[in-house]
Amino acid sequence: MKLHTSLRAPNPRRVDMFIAEKGIHGIEKVVYDLNRQEHRSASFLARNPLARVPVLELDDGRCLAESRAICTYLEALYPEPNLMGVDPTERAFIEMADRQVEFFLLAPIANHIRHTHPGLAALENPQFADFGASQGTRMLEAARTFDERLASREWMAGDRYTVADITAFCGLEFARLAKFKPADAGLARLAAWRDRVAARPSAATA
Amino acid sequence: MKLHTSLRAPNPRRVDMFIAEKGIHGIEKVVYDLNRQEHRSASFLARNPLARVPVLELDDGRCLAESRAICTYLEALYPEPNLMGVDPTERAFIEMADRQVEFFLLAPIANHIRHTHPGLAALENPQFADFGASQGTRMLEAARTFDERLASREWMAGDRYTVADITAFCGLEFARLAKFKPADAGLARLAAWRDRVAARPSAATA
Repeated sequence: MKLHTSLRAPNPRRVDMFIAEKGIHGIEKVVYDLNRQEHRSASFLARNPLARVPVLELDDGRCLAESRAICTYLEALYPEPNLMGVDPTERAFIEMADRQVEFFLLAPIANHIRHTHPGLAALENPQFADFGASQGTRMLEAARTFDERLASREWMAGDRYTVADITAFCGLEFARLAKFKPADAGLARLAAWRDRVAARPSAATA
Repeated sequence: MKLHTSLRAPNPRRVDMFIAEKGIHGIEKVVYDLNRQEHRSASFLARNPLARVPVLELDDGRCLAESRAICTYLEALYPEPNLMGVDPTERAFIEMADRQVEFFLLAPIANHIRHTHPGLAALENPQFADFGASQGTRMLEAARTFDERLASREWMAGDRYTVADITAFCGLEFARLAKFKPADAGLARLAAWRDRVAARPSAATA
């Protein structure tokens, strides 16, 4: 298998951390420079016409895009440690948690940065600064909601580390570009959770 | 089970169509009026602090939010007809297709309408008209990409109807609020696919 991916972006990092948690070795990496628009080259578009990294190219040549779908595939191939649910009910509740941190935390963080950070102007053209600023507010509201959630659970989906922690962590780490840190915002539970995730070896794969 | 939901919104409709395709009966519906902010009532927020419909309340009282996670749960409970993949590989590829139509078609359509339509001003406050207009362009670009995809396949995820067709259809039907129809845009394959989905009894559940 080959992973077509890039550096320093949250979605590629989700798959990197998932692979590290699973202890999977031997996936060849092909790295694309997004700032040089390499993900819009003919060879990449042949693998994903929607021009988004990462893409997992299987040994039979089929190409699987979308970070979470790649995780679903790898989870089946490498079931342990389980990160996405051991039965259908747990799988559904972990999917809920994963989507919630993706849509309410990672997405507004990404929108906020893409529409306000000068370094992202080449990727997000045109930028809409007022929309970007409002997404920063949404990010903060969501961070408060997840901080409250962590009053009654240790991890984003419940009592164990799952793919939802990876997604939320990659979102929050990306938020550093906007100088947002949970501890600075007084969100002690979210900050402590962030440190628990950061302490795992998989977090060193950025 | 109880489904806490609303009328005329694309995500509730995804679950309605999924339930209809499965032929599931007996799920009680509790309908919330979004324009009256009923999804921000204490009783709804107790079920989903993120204030989003639909939510499936299980018989043991646990509440499952997020349309696609609800479908994952119902797929396990009612395996036939299969809509999300019969094995892990197919499940991953259908998840990819479902996410692609959700993020590249449904999301820009929803953003476009929420930020430009006067009828959505109460839900999306403030609206950012210039961002909304740009999302209309994204919607059109994505519609072209999916129209091309349908040159080599009959359905969004391949050679059979799946959850990805439901997601894409609910997005496109919502786009009628912005007066967008694939046929008017000269996208003949997307228009024909839309008509195939619309002809199924499940499409009459709006």
